[in-house]
Amino acid sequence: MQHKRGKTEGREEPVVVVREATAGDLSLILTFIKELAEFERLSHAVVATEEALYESLFGDRSYAHALIGEYGGEPVGFAVYFYNFSTFQGRHGLYIEDIYIQPEKRGLGIGKMLLEHCARIAVSAGCARMEFAVLEWNPARRFYEAIGAEGLDDWIIYRLSSEKLKALAGI
Amino acid sequence: MQHKRGKTEGREEPVVVVREATAGDLSLILTFIKELAEFERLSHAVVATEEALYESLFGDRSYAHALIGEYGGEPVGFAVYFYNFSTFQGRHGLYIEDIYIQPEKRGLGIGKMLLEHCARIAVSAGCARMEFAVLEWNPARRFYEAIGAEGLDDWIIYRLSSEKLKALAGI
Repeated sequence: MQHKRGKTEGREEPVVVVREATAGDLSLILTFIKELAEFERLSHAVVATEEALYESLFGDRSYAHALIGEYGGEPVGFAVYFYNFSTFQGRHGLYIEDIYIQPEKRGLGIGKMLLEHCARIAVSAGCARMEFAVLEWNPARRFYEAIGAEGLDDWIIYRLSSEKLKALAGI
Repeated sequence: MQHKRGKTEGREEPVVVVREATAGDLSLILTFIKELAEFERLSHAVVATEEALYESLFGDRSYAHALIGEYGGEPVGFAVYFYNFSTFQGRHGLYIEDIYIQPEKRGLGIGKMLLEHCARIAVSAGCARMEFAVLEWNPARRFYEAIGAEGLDDWIIYRLSSEKLKALAGI
């Protein structure tokens, strides 16, 4: 599935394309993940490798999916999503784990095209909703709210990591 | 996989069991989902049916899983989880969508046994972390923090629901 936009009213403008990622994009995806982590001031949290991403995105038991956003033939951003599940809805939803556009290519509508693409995938897959987590200080919140996303301010994500998780498991 | 506790120091106390749910538990699970929604003041949000839950939990393409907590042979709570994915980790994690113990059976350690069971599943599956979302006013937050869970206060979950999702998808 591809989604294109370009050449409007006789004026040549670089074509924007959203396409599914392939295994050939792994190095690029890891670069984008690191750039996003840097923007989120979370570089220390990145331990992903190309091998691990291959398994998760393209391996036999993969269940996460990546999209690449291109501008004038150059990849400039990406999105990674998977399906989550709502007991209240009794059905799955689409969860966007990451969405990122390189700083110099923001404001050109590429992020919106990635989100639109995700929304079409979600609707096609029978999802009732699409969700993602955003850092409180991220100015993109205004953009997400403008396209109709609602911030669930009354929910807090809790996380049990590595050692604490093992301790609870008694391992 | 089952997890039991009972009969300590000569004193008979009801046995606590955590077991995997089966299709025979669907009506019970839907009841628990509705009770949880009532506790969370979100009853209006429950549209799940037994049929939809069957597909998600036990159907050919199921990817969510349910556990039942029993006290003295009686089911008194449940947990539903699925696997999410972290690009920073490059691997999946375990996400607990729901965890619920009936009010009169709280404080008996059944919820902790459900969480421990989830933690063992997570570690066995190679997950680096386990996550769940908690309502800000839920007193269980203290319990989650006591077992080592960290509240990610700087993240906000955003949600695009039904009509807004379709609008973005252009459908």
